[in-house]
Amino acid sequence: MKEKQPAKLSESCRSMQDSSEAPLFRSEAANDEFDGFARYSERKLAFGKLGGTASSSRPMWDGSFFYLCCCAEAIWVVPREEKLVPKDLLLYIFLINDEADDALSRVSKGRKRTIMKRAYNFNAGPSCMPLEVLQEAQAEFLNYADTGMSIIEMSHRSADYAAMHAETKALLRELMDIPEDYEILFIQGGGSTQFLMTAANFHTKKYAAYVNTGVWAKKAMAEAKFFGEAYEAASSADKNHSYIPTEFSFKPDTSYVHITANNTIYGTEYKSFPKFDVPVICDMSSDILSRKVNVADFDLIYAGAQKNLGPAGVVIVIAKKRFLATARQELPTMLKYSTFADNDSLYNTPPVFAIYMVNKTLHWIKKQGGVEAIAKNNEAKAKVIYDVIDNSNGFYKGHAEKGSRSLMNITFNLATPEMEKDFVAKGKAAGFVGIGGHRLVGGCRASTYNAVPMEACVALAEFMKEYQKSHE
Amino acid sequence: MKEKQPAKLSESCRSMQDSSEAPLFRSEAANDEFDGFARYSERKLAFGKLGGTASSSRPMWDGSFFYLCCCAEAIWVVPREEKLVPKDLLLYIFLINDEADDALSRVSKGRKRTIMKRAYNFNAGPSCMPLEVLQEAQAEFLNYADTGMSIIEMSHRSADYAAMHAETKALLRELMDIPEDYEILFIQGGGSTQFLMTAANFHTKKYAAYVNTGVWAKKAMAEAKFFGEAYEAASSADKNHSYIPTEFSFKPDTSYVHITANNTIYGTEYKSFPKFDVPVICDMSSDILSRKVNVADFDLIYAGAQKNLGPAGVVIVIAKKRFLATARQELPTMLKYSTFADNDSLYNTPPVFAIYMVNKTLHWIKKQGGVEAIAKNNEAKAKVIYDVIDNSNGFYKGHAEKGSRSLMNITFNLATPEMEKDFVAKGKAAGFVGIGGHRLVGGCRASTYNAVPMEACVALAEFMKEYQKSHE
Repeated sequence: MKEKQPAKLSESCRSMQDSSEAPLFRSEAANDEFDGFARYSERKLAFGKLGGTASSSRPMWDGSFFYLCCCAEAIWVVPREEKLVPKDLLLYIFLINDEADDALSRVSKGRKRTIMKRAYNFNAGPSCMPLEVLQEAQAEFLNYADTGMSIIEMSHRSADYAAMHAETKALLRELMDIPEDYEILFIQGGGSTQFLMTAANFHTKKYAAYVNTGVWAKKAMAEAKFFGEAYEAASSADKNHSYIPTEFSFKPDTSYVHITANNTIYGTEYKSFPKFDVPVICDMSSDILSRKVNVADFDLIYAGAQKNLGPAGVVIVIAKKRFLATARQELPTMLKYSTFADNDSLYNTPPVFAIYMVNKTLHWIKKQGGVEAIAKNNEAKAKVIYDVIDNSNGFYKGHAEKGSRSLMNITFNLATPEMEKDFVAKGKAAGFVGIGGHRLVGGCRASTYNAVPMEACVALAEFMKEYQKSHE
Repeated sequence: MKEKQPAKLSESCRSMQDSSEAPLFRSEAANDEFDGFARYSERKLAFGKLGGTASSSRPMWDGSFFYLCCCAEAIWVVPREEKLVPKDLLLYIFLINDEADDALSRVSKGRKRTIMKRAYNFNAGPSCMPLEVLQEAQAEFLNYADTGMSIIEMSHRSADYAAMHAETKALLRELMDIPEDYEILFIQGGGSTQFLMTAANFHTKKYAAYVNTGVWAKKAMAEAKFFGEAYEAASSADKNHSYIPTEFSFKPDTSYVHITANNTIYGTEYKSFPKFDVPVICDMSSDILSRKVNVADFDLIYAGAQKNLGPAGVVIVIAKKRFLATARQELPTMLKYSTFADNDSLYNTPPVFAIYMVNKTLHWIKKQGGVEAIAKNNEAKAKVIYDVIDNSNGFYKGHAEKGSRSLMNITFNLATPEMEKDFVAKGKAAGFVGIGGHRLVGGCRASTYNAVPMEACVALAEFMKEYQKSHE
């Protein structure tokens, strides 16, 4: 190392080291030990022996090492206690070539250094997004498509925006195999606004039917009363929503039936969708694109983006044109689906950034092999955690009945609320984010949406086994 | 240069140079000539003689130079045709110290190289954002506040999000001097949804009054009819909305008067706000935080973020608590302001990213010296362009009457629509984005929102003068 020409650590870098300046990234790798060397490859820094990837545009200080990484041919590494480094000269620059590889290997050989990790993110929503999607958005954040502008600075009437907007719809149509007689709309206001809009537009007969599978289903039903009567075609309230009903009863003169495909709070999910004789409106917010569905079985699907599609701020609506034509006409502009359908969701300024991130997420899904590959992975991921529950001799008790288990939200309880609290706290300390149950019901929950990597599920499973062992 | 140790350009970099890989940034500087040297300073790369700043986390190729910049002590510069550089060895690394400064100066001395510029962005909305805001968001996009997560992956119930949410409100309260008896709310759906919500909540008497200053005012008025009768307290329709009315007439039993502070399409703006005897609702979407206003003069202010506050996707509502208490109660959940006020705008998932960018923008405004400093700058910026119009001997005709001129949207016409088309096309070719008039009215328009730099206004003024010269 001493043979290399070291750049003296500048004042700005030195002060950064002393401050609590936050590090920019954590390694995607599960392994939290630094025992390899870093190398630039295809716009990412790959940590040799770890197999993980990461990139950064800001200096990082992890308490032991000081990294300056960039999308370039070099990594700056400062092993703070490295004896070869004079105390006042913390910054070395290693050019990545054979010599540098050697130098870096020499530095790290035989040493165990903790490097920062990307969080194990089990949040229920907003939730984990694919790292590649975030990295791409970051890379072009100041200059979208060589326009000299950020995507969020561009007119929604510009050709560049229009192309992205159209591509997003085309990608969704391709990935979900959406028939041509269905509109794809982008609407703000979250699922809660869809509770209102679905009823406002389509509750035109005497009754509207709702399948009560929990909190969100009930909230949807509450909005219907402004437009007519509403009743429960089925309910799982008798067993604290631990299952998906299979028997439904309908009244005559029913406008539609509203179902919730996946219930985030209880961890239940329709394994297959029943056939109904009335139009079907489905809240697919928490499992859209997690598995193959036959869009033609539904008259309207809506999904808030913040689980499997992108950041909060946009809802995707997929609606049969013939069904849209049956909507109530006398409504305020922004409550009418026709306002969005007639104007390609550009009646007013759309939530550009959210749609843009949905676009990137759809590209990512396609790259993973499409919805079928994603579904397979989701099954494998959930199995890793459900297996721990099932093999725990009752230490962990799954909330959902086995036949209704969600692949997106895995809910479970421990012996007492105190123990659950301890489990969540210890998990948090071990780097697991979002494993507490919903504030309305308590318990524990791991949300394993599309972007949550298998590795995080394996890590959680291991943690659960360790935790159980330490309590037996 | 040859004395320095050059790093061989890797395969990945070489292929990037050959591909059409988009460059990440353009210099903020007006000058498009590279005749200085680059130096790292406070997390930015400052181009010495240009005065501009830029940063990047991705390699850039501008056709002549190849840059690899990072938040570090070095800049990579490849002058492609630089004779000192062997053809097959395009990448040099210059360490920024005295020697490197010299080397960089030597490379550029006496040479004129075009480097990329950040666009002159005069978009009407979504529109230009402060470069520093974009850079900060970019830097921490993968890891917000050392959580190992992007801000868009975090739960809106987490402590980190809550702190940012609260700070955003506090900053807005401070910058606008908002009295304590006013709520600050974050709502999705754009101004168009506010047209509906204001009427739904507050049109509780026989009439609602609207001041018709153009398209947006009329759209707001159209939503009122669902809740009662609406009338025009004044209108500027007689002169194609080229002025702000000063005479108003009211009917008894009027719920409120709705005004539009700034009219983006026509380029008019209230210079001062009239006093009314009924509650005042003000659409401040296009000039909020551009100048000092007395919040206490209004009962409710709303503003879509995408002009002066951040990206599209969130509306800021500032409402007097006593006024909120008068709202209609029997409304669907998401149409009631009380849903937002009672739940700190967290009844359902808020548009996290948009609020986060508003937060950063408010910090930026504070750093500029607050609203008064911003207002002064806005006046100076607008003057530069209005002066060209006024000194053009009628070549450019301002649409708005002088006493009603907007500081945010400068609207003007040329002799014929064909000439306007030519002006916009030539302007576009010269790097001016968004200078066409609104699709409903034509003509030309330069939107000079808070974040548009003086330098862009000066450049446009120069372009306008040049264009006039070439047509006389």
